[in-house]
Amino acid sequence: MTDGSLAVVGLGPGPVDWLLPEAASVLGQATDLVGYVPYVARVPERAGLVRHATDNRVEVDRARHAFALALAGRHVAVVSGGDPGVFAMAAAVFEALEADPTFRAVPVRVVPGLSAMQAAAARLGAPLGHDFCAMSLSDNLKPWEVVLRRLTAVAEGDFVLALYNPASNARPARLGEALAHLRDLKDAATPVAFARAIGRPDERVHLTSLGEADPALVDMATLVMIGSSETRWVAGADGRRWMLTPRSYGRGTT
Amino acid sequence: MTDGSLAVVGLGPGPVDWLLPEAASVLGQATDLVGYVPYVARVPERAGLVRHATDNRVEVDRARHAFALALAGRHVAVVSGGDPGVFAMAAAVFEALEADPTFRAVPVRVVPGLSAMQAAAARLGAPLGHDFCAMSLSDNLKPWEVVLRRLTAVAEGDFVLALYNPASNARPARLGEALAHLRDLKDAATPVAFARAIGRPDERVHLTSLGEADPALVDMATLVMIGSSETRWVAGADGRRWMLTPRSYGRGTT
Repeated sequence: MTDGSLAVVGLGPGPVDWLLPEAASVLGQATDLVGYVPYVARVPERAGLVRHATDNRVEVDRARHAFALALAGRHVAVVSGGDPGVFAMAAAVFEALEADPTFRAVPVRVVPGLSAMQAAAARLGAPLGHDFCAMSLSDNLKPWEVVLRRLTAVAEGDFVLALYNPASNARPARLGEALAHLRDLKDAATPVAFARAIGRPDERVHLTSLGEADPALVDMATLVMIGSSETRWVAGADGRRWMLTPRSYGRGTT
Repeated sequence: MTDGSLAVVGLGPGPVDWLLPEAASVLGQATDLVGYVPYVARVPERAGLVRHATDNRVEVDRARHAFALALAGRHVAVVSGGDPGVFAMAAAVFEALEADPTFRAVPVRVVPGLSAMQAAAARLGAPLGHDFCAMSLSDNLKPWEVVLRRLTAVAEGDFVLALYNPASNARPARLGEALAHLRDLKDAATPVAFARAIGRPDERVHLTSLGEADPALVDMATLVMIGSSETRWVAGADGRRWMLTPRSYGRGTT
Protein backbone atom coordinates (compact mmCIF):
# COMPACT_ATOMS: atom_id res chain seq x y z
CA MET A 1 0.00 0.00 0.00
CA THR A 2 1.00 3.56 -0.67
CA ASP A 3 0.22 6.55 1.53
CA GLY A 4 -1.33 8.14 -1.51
CA SER A 5 -4.85 7.79 -2.82
CA LEU A 6 -6.91 8.26 -5.94
CA ALA A 7 -10.48 9.60 -6.03
CA VAL A 8 -12.51 9.96 -9.22
CA VAL A 9 -14.66 12.99 -8.55
CA GLY A 10 -17.80 14.14 -10.35
CA LEU A 11 -18.14 17.90 -10.70
CA GLY A 12 -21.73 17.72 -11.95
CA PRO A 13 -23.04 19.75 -14.89
CA GLY A 14 -21.43 23.02 -13.83
CA PRO A 15 -23.03 25.15 -11.12
CA VAL A 16 -21.70 24.84 -7.55
CA ASP A 17 -25.32 24.35 -6.47
CA TRP A 18 -25.08 20.98 -8.23
CA LEU A 19 -21.76 19.88 -6.68
CA LEU A 20 -22.23 17.22 -3.99
CA PRO A 21 -20.75 18.00 -0.54
CA GLU A 22 -18.72 14.77 -0.73
CA ALA A 23 -17.08 16.00 -3.94
CA ALA A 24 -16.36 19.43 -2.45
CA SER A 25 -14.79 17.74 0.59
CA VAL A 26 -12.55 15.41 -1.45
CA LEU A 27 -11.46 18.29 -3.71
CA GLY A 28 -10.63 20.29 -0.57
CA GLN A 29 -8.25 17.56 0.63
CA ALA A 30 -6.61 16.66 -2.69
CA THR A 31 -2.97 17.51 -3.31
CA ASP A 32 -3.24 17.01 -7.08
CA LEU A 33 -5.95 17.46 -9.69
CA VAL A 34 -5.88 15.44 -12.89
CA GLY A 35 -8.35 16.02 -15.69
CA TYR A 36 -9.45 17.68 -18.87
CA VAL A 37 -8.56 21.39 -18.93
CA PRO A 38 -12.05 22.91 -18.43
CA TYR A 39 -12.90 20.56 -15.54
CA VAL A 40 -9.64 21.20 -13.71
CA ALA A 41 -10.28 24.93 -14.20
CA ARG A 42 -13.60 24.65 -12.34
CA VAL A 43 -11.91 23.76 -9.05
CA PRO A 44 -11.03 26.85 -6.95
CA GLU A 45 -7.37 27.76 -6.43
CA ARG A 46 -5.80 26.69 -3.15
CA ALA A 47 -2.21 26.93 -1.89
CA GLY A 48 -0.34 23.68 -2.54
CA LEU A 49 -2.87 22.26 -4.99
CA VAL A 50 -1.06 20.99 -8.09
CA ARG A 51 -2.98 20.95 -11.37
CA HIS A 52 -2.33 18.43 -14.15
CA ALA A 53 -4.68 19.55 -16.90
CA THR A 54 -4.59 17.50 -20.07
CA ASP A 55 -6.21 17.26 -23.46
CA ASN A 56 -9.50 15.38 -23.74
CA ARG A 57 -8.24 12.55 -25.96
CA VAL A 58 -5.91 10.74 -23.60
CA GLU A 59 -8.20 9.43 -20.87
CA VAL A 60 -6.24 6.27 -20.06
CA ASP A 61 -2.91 8.14 -20.09
CA ARG A 62 -4.51 10.58 -17.68
CA ALA A 63 -5.67 7.74 -15.45
CA ARG A 64 -2.19 6.14 -15.49
CA HIS A 65 -0.62 9.48 -14.58
CA ALA A 66 -3.05 9.75 -11.65
CA PHE A 67 -2.08 6.28 -10.38
CA ALA A 68 1.62 7.13 -10.70
CA LEU A 69 1.11 10.27 -8.61
CA ALA A 70 -0.84 8.28 -5.99
CA LEU A 71 1.93 5.65 -5.85
CA ALA A 72 4.31 8.52 -5.09
CA GLY A 73 2.18 9.37 -2.06
CA ARG A 74 -0.02 12.13 -3.50
CA HIS A 75 -3.77 12.45 -2.87
CA VAL A 76 -5.06 12.68 -6.39
CA ALA A 77 -8.52 13.77 -7.52
CA VAL A 78 -9.30 12.78 -11.10
CA VAL A 79 -12.00 15.29 -12.01
CA SER A 80 -14.80 14.66 -14.46
CA GLY A 81 -17.84 16.65 -15.54
CA GLY A 82 -21.22 15.22 -14.57
CA ASP A 83 -21.09 11.81 -12.91
CA PRO A 84 -17.67 10.15 -13.39
CA GLY A 85 -19.50 6.83 -13.69
CA VAL A 86 -21.60 7.87 -16.72
CA PHE A 87 -19.60 8.21 -19.95
CA ALA A 88 -16.74 9.75 -17.99
CA MET A 89 -13.47 9.06 -16.17
CA ALA A 90 -14.36 6.20 -13.79
CA ALA A 91 -14.18 3.57 -16.54
CA ALA A 92 -10.81 4.88 -17.76
CA VAL A 93 -9.42 4.67 -14.21
CA PHE A 94 -10.45 1.03 -13.78
CA GLU A 95 -9.16 0.19 -17.26
CA ALA A 96 -5.78 1.57 -16.18
CA LEU A 97 -5.97 -0.44 -12.94
CA GLU A 98 -6.80 -3.59 -14.91
CA ALA A 99 -3.80 -3.11 -17.19
CA ASP A 100 -1.16 -2.56 -14.49
CA PRO A 101 -1.19 -4.70 -11.30
CA THR A 102 1.23 -2.33 -9.56
CA PHE A 103 -1.66 0.15 -9.34
CA ARG A 104 -3.47 -2.23 -6.97
CA ALA A 105 -1.46 -0.70 -4.14
CA VAL A 106 -3.50 2.52 -4.51
CA PRO A 107 -6.75 2.95 -2.55
CA VAL A 108 -9.37 4.04 -5.09
CA ARG A 109 -12.68 5.78 -4.42
CA VAL A 110 -15.41 7.01 -6.77
CA VAL A 111 -17.30 10.17 -5.78
CA PRO A 112 -20.50 10.43 -7.81
CA GLY A 113 -22.00 13.54 -9.34
CA LEU A 114 -25.12 14.77 -11.07
CA SER A 115 -25.16 13.67 -14.72
CA ALA A 116 -26.30 15.75 -17.71
CA MET A 117 -29.46 13.69 -18.26
CA GLN A 118 -30.61 14.50 -14.74
CA ALA A 119 -30.03 18.21 -15.19
CA ALA A 120 -31.89 18.03 -18.49
CA ALA A 121 -34.72 16.01 -16.94
CA ALA A 122 -35.13 18.56 -14.13
CA ARG A 123 -35.48 21.41 -16.62
CA LEU A 124 -37.79 19.47 -18.92
CA GLY A 125 -40.17 18.09 -16.27
CA ALA A 126 -40.21 14.32 -15.90
CA PRO A 127 -39.02 12.71 -19.14
CA LEU A 128 -37.24 9.93 -17.22
CA GLY A 129 -40.30 9.05 -15.13
CA HIS A 130 -40.39 5.51 -16.51
CA ASP A 131 -37.86 3.00 -17.87
CA PHE A 132 -35.11 4.61 -19.94
CA CYS A 133 -31.74 4.07 -21.62
CA ALA A 134 -28.67 6.26 -21.76
CA MET A 135 -26.40 6.02 -24.80
CA SER A 136 -23.38 7.86 -26.05
CA LEU A 137 -23.59 8.57 -29.76
CA SER A 138 -19.85 8.79 -30.03
CA ASP A 139 -18.47 6.01 -32.19
CA ASN A 140 -14.84 6.67 -31.33
CA LEU A 141 -14.88 3.60 -29.11
CA LYS A 142 -17.60 1.40 -30.59
CA PRO A 143 -18.65 0.41 -34.10
CA TRP A 144 -21.51 2.42 -35.60
CA GLU A 145 -23.38 -0.87 -36.17
CA VAL A 146 -23.50 -1.31 -32.39
CA VAL A 147 -25.06 2.15 -32.07
CA LEU A 148 -27.72 1.23 -34.63
CA ARG A 149 -28.39 -2.13 -33.00
CA ARG A 150 -28.88 -0.40 -29.66
CA LEU A 151 -31.18 2.26 -31.13
CA THR A 152 -33.28 -0.58 -32.55
CA ALA A 153 -33.41 -2.23 -29.12
CA VAL A 154 -34.41 1.09 -27.50
CA ALA A 155 -37.30 1.38 -29.96
CA GLU A 156 -38.33 -2.27 -29.55
CA GLY A 157 -38.35 -1.90 -25.77
CA ASP A 158 -40.13 1.47 -26.10
CA PHE A 159 -37.66 3.07 -23.72
CA VAL A 160 -37.11 6.78 -23.27
CA LEU A 161 -33.62 7.58 -24.56
CA ALA A 162 -31.07 10.06 -23.21
CA LEU A 163 -28.40 10.61 -25.88
CA TYR A 164 -24.98 11.87 -24.78
CA ASN A 165 -22.27 13.19 -27.12
CA PRO A 166 -24.76 13.66 -29.96
CA ALA A 167 -22.51 15.69 -32.22
CA SER A 168 -18.86 16.11 -32.99
CA ASN A 169 -16.80 18.01 -35.49
CA ALA A 170 -15.36 14.75 -36.73
CA ARG A 171 -18.76 13.12 -37.34
CA PRO A 172 -21.42 15.81 -37.84
CA ALA A 173 -23.82 13.50 -39.68
CA ARG A 174 -24.16 10.85 -36.96
CA LEU A 175 -27.09 12.39 -35.08
CA GLY A 176 -29.00 12.80 -38.33
CA GLU A 177 -28.41 9.13 -39.14
CA ALA A 178 -29.52 8.09 -35.65
CA LEU A 179 -32.71 10.17 -35.86
CA ALA A 180 -33.48 8.78 -39.31
CA HIS A 181 -33.02 5.25 -37.94
CA LEU A 182 -35.41 5.98 -35.05
CA ARG A 183 -37.98 7.57 -37.40
CA ASP A 184 -38.28 4.21 -39.15
CA LEU A 185 -39.18 2.60 -35.82
CA LYS A 186 -41.06 5.21 -33.80
CA ASP A 187 -43.94 7.69 -34.24
CA ALA A 188 -42.91 11.01 -35.82
CA ALA A 189 -44.90 12.81 -33.10
CA THR A 190 -42.68 11.37 -30.33
CA PRO A 191 -41.58 14.26 -28.08
CA VAL A 192 -37.91 15.21 -28.39
CA ALA A 193 -35.97 17.84 -26.45
CA PHE A 194 -32.52 19.32 -26.95
CA ALA A 195 -31.20 20.38 -23.56
CA ARG A 196 -27.99 22.32 -23.98
CA ALA A 197 -25.49 23.24 -21.22
CA ILE A 198 -28.15 22.95 -18.51
CA GLY A 199 -27.11 24.79 -15.36
CA ARG A 200 -24.57 26.96 -17.16
CA PRO A 201 -25.02 30.59 -18.30
CA ASP A 202 -25.54 29.55 -21.92
CA GLU A 203 -28.28 27.03 -21.03
CA ARG A 204 -30.84 26.52 -23.79
CA VAL A 205 -33.82 24.19 -24.21
CA HIS A 206 -35.48 23.39 -27.54
CA LEU A 207 -38.67 21.29 -27.65
CA THR A 208 -39.53 19.44 -30.84
CA SER A 209 -40.65 16.05 -32.14
CA LEU A 210 -38.87 13.09 -33.66
CA GLY A 211 -40.28 14.02 -37.08
CA GLU A 212 -39.11 17.63 -36.89
CA ALA A 213 -35.93 17.35 -34.83
CA ASP A 214 -33.15 19.29 -36.59
CA PRO A 215 -29.64 17.96 -35.87
CA ALA A 216 -28.18 21.34 -36.86
CA LEU A 217 -29.46 22.72 -33.54
CA VAL A 218 -27.36 20.22 -31.54
CA ASP A 219 -23.77 20.50 -30.37
CA MET A 220 -21.57 18.44 -28.02
CA ALA A 221 -22.92 20.33 -24.98
CA THR A 222 -26.44 19.10 -25.78
CA LEU A 223 -28.29 16.21 -24.20
CA VAL A 224 -30.91 14.85 -26.61
CA MET A 225 -33.98 13.41 -24.86
CA ILE A 226 -36.26 11.19 -26.98
CA GLY A 227 -39.58 10.02 -25.57
CA SER A 228 -41.26 6.62 -25.44
CA SER A 229 -44.72 6.07 -26.92
CA GLU A 230 -46.13 7.29 -23.58
CA THR A 231 -44.13 10.52 -23.36
CA ARG A 232 -46.19 13.67 -23.88
CA TRP A 233 -46.27 17.42 -23.32
CA VAL A 234 -48.07 18.94 -20.36
CA ALA A 235 -49.09 22.61 -20.27
CA GLY A 236 -47.73 24.57 -17.33
CA ALA A 237 -47.63 28.16 -16.06
CA ASP A 238 -47.07 30.98 -18.58
CA GLY A 239 -47.66 28.74 -21.58
CA ARG A 240 -44.60 26.60 -20.99
CA ARG A 241 -44.62 22.91 -21.87
CA TRP A 242 -43.27 20.14 -19.66
CA MET A 243 -42.10 16.74 -20.94
CA LEU A 244 -43.77 13.88 -19.06
CA THR A 245 -43.26 10.15 -19.20
CA PRO A 246 -45.95 8.90 -16.83
CA ARG A 247 -45.32 6.22 -14.20
CA SER A 248 -47.95 3.92 -15.64
CA TYR A 249 -47.63 2.20 -19.00
CA GLY A 250 -50.23 0.95 -21.45
CA ARG A 251 -52.81 3.75 -21.47
CA GLY A 252 -51.50 4.73 -24.90
CA THR A 253 -51.64 3.16 -28.33
CA THR A 254 -48.75 0.69 -28.15
CA MET B 1 -50.55 33.11 -10.67
CA THR B 2 -50.40 32.26 -6.99
CA ASP B 3 -47.78 33.59 -4.58
CA GLY B 4 -47.11 29.99 -3.69
CA SER B 5 -44.77 27.56 -5.39
CA LEU B 6 -44.06 23.87 -5.75
CA ALA B 7 -40.61 22.30 -5.91
CA VAL B 8 -40.01 18.59 -6.38
CA VAL B 9 -36.83 17.97 -4.42
CA GLY B 10 -34.47 15.00 -4.59
CA LEU B 11 -32.96 13.98 -1.26
CA GLY B 12 -30.49 11.56 -2.83
CA PRO B 13 -29.79 8.07 -1.48
CA GLY B 14 -29.54 9.14 2.17
CA PRO B 15 -26.35 10.74 3.50
CA VAL B 16 -26.19 14.55 3.72
CA ASP B 17 -22.89 14.31 1.85
CA TRP B 18 -25.00 13.29 -1.16
CA LEU B 19 -27.60 16.07 -0.87
CA LEU B 20 -27.12 18.78 -3.52
CA PRO B 21 -26.73 22.36 -2.22
CA GLU B 22 -29.70 23.42 -4.40
CA ALA B 23 -31.90 20.88 -2.61
CA ALA B 24 -30.68 22.01 0.82
CA SER B 25 -31.43 25.61 -0.13
CA VAL B 26 -34.96 24.89 -1.40
CA LEU B 27 -35.71 22.79 1.69
CA GLY B 28 -34.49 25.68 3.83
CA GLN B 29 -37.02 28.04 2.24
CA ALA B 30 -40.03 25.71 2.08
CA THR B 31 -43.05 26.32 4.31
CA ASP B 32 -44.48 22.83 3.73
CA LEU B 33 -43.03 19.39 3.10
CA VAL B 34 -45.08 16.78 1.28
CA GLY B 35 -43.88 13.22 0.84
CA TYR B 36 -43.60 9.64 1.93
CA VAL B 37 -43.02 9.35 5.71
CA PRO B 38 -39.32 8.31 5.76
CA TYR B 39 -38.33 11.02 3.24
CA VAL B 40 -40.14 13.80 5.12
CA ALA B 41 -38.44 12.54 8.31
CA ARG B 42 -35.02 13.09 6.71
CA VAL B 43 -35.46 16.88 6.55
CA PRO B 44 -34.26 18.65 9.73
CA GLU B 45 -36.82 20.32 12.02
CA ARG B 46 -37.26 24.06 11.62
CA ALA B 47 -39.72 26.49 13.25
CA GLY B 48 -42.73 27.06 10.98
CA LEU B 49 -42.06 24.10 8.70
CA VAL B 50 -45.26 22.08 8.25
CA ARG B 51 -44.93 18.37 7.47
CA HIS B 52 -47.49 16.45 5.42
CA ALA B 53 -46.17 12.89 5.55
CA THR B 54 -48.23 10.33 3.67
CA ASP B 55 -48.25 6.66 2.87
CA ASN B 56 -46.27 5.46 -0.14
CA ARG B 57 -49.21 4.33 -2.27
CA VAL B 58 -50.92 7.61 -3.02
CA GLU B 59 -48.42 9.48 -5.14
CA VAL B 60 -50.89 11.42 -7.27
CA ASP B 61 -53.05 12.31 -4.24
CA ARG B 62 -49.87 13.58 -2.63
CA ALA B 63 -49.06 15.65 -5.71
CA ARG B 64 -52.58 17.11 -5.80
CA HIS B 65 -52.33 18.03 -2.15
CA ALA B 66 -49.04 19.78 -2.84
CA PHE B 67 -50.62 21.84 -5.67
CA ALA B 68 -53.57 22.77 -3.43
CA LEU B 69 -51.17 24.02 -0.76
CA ALA B 70 -49.23 26.02 -3.36
CA LEU B 71 -52.46 27.55 -4.69
CA ALA B 72 -53.13 28.67 -1.12
CA GLY B 73 -49.85 30.56 -1.17
CA ARG B 74 -47.55 28.03 0.50
CA HIS B 75 -44.03 27.20 -0.69
CA VAL B 76 -44.22 23.46 -0.96
CA ALA B 77 -41.35 21.00 -1.30
CA VAL B 78 -42.44 17.59 -2.52
CA VAL B 79 -39.61 15.40 -1.26
CA SER B 80 -38.42 12.23 -2.93
CA GLY B 81 -35.56 9.84 -2.29
CA GLY B 82 -32.84 9.71 -4.93
CA ASP B 83 -33.54 11.81 -8.02
CA PRO B 84 -37.21 12.85 -8.20
CA GLY B 85 -36.98 12.41 -11.97
CA VAL B 86 -36.02 8.71 -11.82
CA PHE B 87 -38.87 6.39 -10.71
CA ALA B 88 -39.96 9.00 -8.18
CA MET B 89 -42.25 11.97 -7.53
CA ALA B 90 -41.60 14.27 -10.53
CA ALA B 91 -43.79 12.21 -12.87
CA ALA B 92 -46.65 12.11 -10.34
CA VAL B 93 -46.50 15.89 -10.00
CA PHE B 94 -46.77 16.47 -13.76
CA GLU B 95 -49.54 13.86 -14.02
CA ALA B 96 -51.48 15.87 -11.42
CA LEU B 97 -50.77 19.07 -13.36
CA GLU B 98 -51.98 17.45 -16.58
CA ALA B 99 -55.24 16.37 -14.94
CA ASP B 100 -56.18 19.72 -13.42
CA PRO B 101 -55.69 22.96 -15.42
CA THR B 102 -56.20 25.10 -12.28
CA PHE B 103 -52.78 23.86 -11.14
CA ARG B 104 -51.19 25.75 -14.06
CA ALA B 105 -51.22 28.85 -11.85
CA VAL B 106 -48.48 27.27 -9.71
CA PRO B 107 -44.81 27.83 -10.58
CA VAL B 108 -43.17 24.39 -10.59
CA ARG B 109 -39.50 23.55 -10.30
CA VAL B 110 -37.65 20.23 -10.24
CA VAL B 111 -34.53 19.99 -8.07
CA PRO B 112 -32.53 16.92 -9.08
CA GLY B 113 -30.73 14.50 -6.81
CA LEU B 114 -28.33 11.59 -6.89
CA SER B 115 -30.12 8.39 -7.89
CA ALA B 116 -29.58 4.92 -6.40
CA MET B 117 -27.88 3.56 -9.53
CA GLN B 118 -25.21 6.28 -9.25
CA ALA B 119 -24.54 5.51 -5.60
CA ALA B 120 -24.33 1.82 -6.51
CA ALA B 121 -22.06 2.52 -9.47
CA ALA B 122 -19.70 4.58 -7.31
CA ARG B 123 -19.33 1.74 -4.79
CA LEU B 124 -18.99 -0.93 -7.49
CA GLY B 125 -16.45 0.85 -9.69
CA ALA B 126 -17.61 1.76 -13.18
CA PRO B 127 -20.48 -0.56 -14.18
CA LEU B 128 -22.24 2.29 -16.06
CA GLY B 129 -19.16 3.22 -18.06
CA HIS B 130 -20.91 2.45 -21.35
CA ASP B 131 -24.50 2.48 -22.67
CA PHE B 132 -27.04 1.33 -20.08
CA CYS B 133 -30.73 1.08 -19.26
CA ALA B 134 -32.61 1.75 -16.04
CA MET B 135 -35.80 -0.18 -15.36
CA SER B 136 -38.18 -0.52 -12.48
CA LEU B 137 -39.20 -4.12 -11.90
CA SER B 138 -42.41 -3.04 -10.22
CA ASP B 139 -45.41 -4.08 -12.27
CA ASN B 140 -47.90 -2.08 -10.23
CA LEU B 141 -48.12 0.39 -13.08
CA LYS B 142 -47.20 -1.62 -16.16
CA PRO B 143 -48.04 -5.09 -17.46
CA TRP B 144 -45.47 -7.80 -16.74
CA GLU B 145 -45.31 -8.52 -20.49
CA VAL B 146 -43.88 -5.01 -20.95
CA VAL B 147 -41.19 -5.80 -18.39
CA LEU B 148 -40.27 -9.00 -20.24
CA ARG B 149 -40.27 -7.22 -23.62
CA ARG B 150 -37.93 -4.59 -22.22
CA LEU B 151 -35.60 -7.18 -20.67
CA THR B 152 -35.40 -8.83 -24.10
CA ALA B 153 -34.54 -5.47 -25.67
CA VAL B 154 -31.86 -4.83 -23.04
CA ALA B 155 -30.28 -8.19 -23.89
CA GLU B 156 -30.57 -7.63 -27.65
CA GLY B 157 -28.95 -4.22 -27.32
CA ASP B 158 -26.34 -5.69 -24.92
CA PHE B 159 -26.92 -2.82 -22.49
CA VAL B 160 -25.86 -2.77 -18.87
CA LEU B 161 -29.02 -2.82 -16.76
CA ALA B 162 -29.76 -1.03 -13.48
CA LEU B 163 -32.87 -2.60 -11.92
CA TYR B 164 -34.88 -0.53 -9.43
CA ASN B 165 -37.61 -1.91 -7.14
CA PRO B 166 -36.43 -5.50 -7.68
CA ALA B 167 -38.51 -7.05 -4.91
CA SER B 168 -41.75 -6.50 -3.10
CA ASN B 169 -43.78 -8.37 -0.53
CA ALA B 170 -46.67 -8.48 -2.96
CA ARG B 171 -44.63 -10.02 -5.79
CA PRO B 172 -41.59 -11.84 -4.37
CA ALA B 173 -41.12 -14.07 -7.43
CA ARG B 174 -40.72 -11.29 -10.01
CA LEU B 175 -36.95 -10.86 -9.73
CA GLY B 176 -36.47 -14.61 -10.10
CA GLU B 177 -38.59 -14.57 -13.25
CA ALA B 178 -36.65 -11.61 -14.64
CA LEU B 179 -33.29 -13.28 -13.97
CA ALA B 180 -34.50 -16.53 -15.55
CA HIS B 181 -35.62 -14.55 -18.62
CA LEU B 182 -32.21 -12.88 -18.88
CA ARG B 183 -30.38 -16.23 -18.43
CA ASP B 184 -32.02 -17.42 -21.62
CA LEU B 185 -30.55 -14.43 -23.47
CA LYS B 186 -27.21 -13.67 -21.82
CA ASP B 187 -24.06 -15.49 -20.68
CA ALA B 188 -24.35 -17.05 -17.21
CA ALA B 189 -20.95 -15.56 -16.34
CA THR B 190 -22.25 -11.98 -16.81
CA PRO B 191 -21.26 -9.96 -13.72
CA VAL B 192 -24.15 -9.05 -11.41
CA ALA B 193 -24.07 -6.94 -8.25
CA PHE B 194 -26.65 -6.39 -5.54
CA ALA B 195 -26.05 -2.95 -4.04
CA ARG B 196 -28.24 -2.46 -0.99
CA ALA B 197 -28.94 0.85 0.81
CA ILE B 198 -25.73 2.43 -0.50
CA GLY B 199 -24.70 5.43 1.59
CA ARG B 200 -26.77 4.36 4.57
CA PRO B 201 -25.52 2.61 7.75
CA ASP B 202 -26.88 -0.76 6.59
CA GLU B 203 -25.13 -0.56 3.19
CA ARG B 204 -24.22 -3.96 1.75
CA VAL B 205 -22.70 -5.08 -1.57
CA HIS B 206 -22.91 -8.61 -2.94
CA LEU B 207 -21.02 -9.56 -6.11
CA THR B 208 -22.20 -12.53 -8.15
CA SER B 209 -22.98 -13.62 -11.70
CA LEU B 210 -26.16 -13.93 -13.71
CA GLY B 211 -25.99 -17.72 -13.42
CA GLU B 212 -25.58 -17.67 -9.63
CA ALA B 213 -27.57 -14.58 -8.65
CA ASP B 214 -29.91 -15.49 -5.76
CA PRO B 215 -33.09 -13.36 -5.61
CA ALA B 216 -33.48 -14.25 -1.91
CA LEU B 217 -30.61 -11.85 -1.17
CA VAL B 218 -32.50 -8.88 -2.66
CA ASP B 219 -34.99 -6.53 -0.99
CA MET B 220 -36.64 -3.26 -2.04
CA ALA B 221 -33.64 -1.24 -0.83
CA THR B 222 -31.41 -3.08 -3.33
CA LEU B 223 -30.27 -1.85 -6.74
CA VAL B 224 -29.49 -4.81 -9.01
CA MET B 225 -26.74 -4.11 -11.53
CA ILE B 226 -26.44 -6.54 -14.46
CA GLY B 227 -23.51 -6.27 -16.85
CA SER B 228 -23.27 -6.24 -20.63
CA SER B 229 -21.12 -8.77 -22.51
CA GLU B 230 -18.19 -6.40 -21.94
CA THR B 231 -18.60 -5.95 -18.19
CA ARG B 232 -15.93 -7.65 -16.09
CA TRP B 233 -14.28 -7.74 -12.67
CA VAL B 234 -11.04 -5.90 -11.99
CA ALA B 235 -8.81 -6.73 -9.02
CA GLY B 236 -8.12 -3.83 -6.68
CA ALA B 237 -6.39 -3.15 -3.36
CA ASP B 238 -6.82 -5.69 -0.53
CA GLY B 239 -8.31 -8.32 -2.80
CA ARG B 240 -11.46 -6.38 -3.57
CA ARG B 241 -13.11 -6.63 -6.98
CA TRP B 242 -14.40 -3.68 -9.02
CA MET B 243 -17.11 -3.94 -11.67
CA LEU B 244 -16.00 -2.37 -14.96
CA THR B 245 -17.85 -1.76 -18.20
CA PRO B 246 -15.10 -0.35 -20.39
CA ARG B 247 -15.57 2.69 -22.62
CA SER B 248 -14.74 0.77 -25.77
CA TYR B 249 -16.95 -1.95 -27.23
CA GLY B 250 -16.12 -4.95 -29.37
CA ARG B 251 -12.93 -6.33 -27.81
CA GLY B 252 -15.02 -9.16 -26.38
CA THR B 253 -16.86 -12.08 -27.91
CA THR B 254 -20.09 -10.41 -29.08
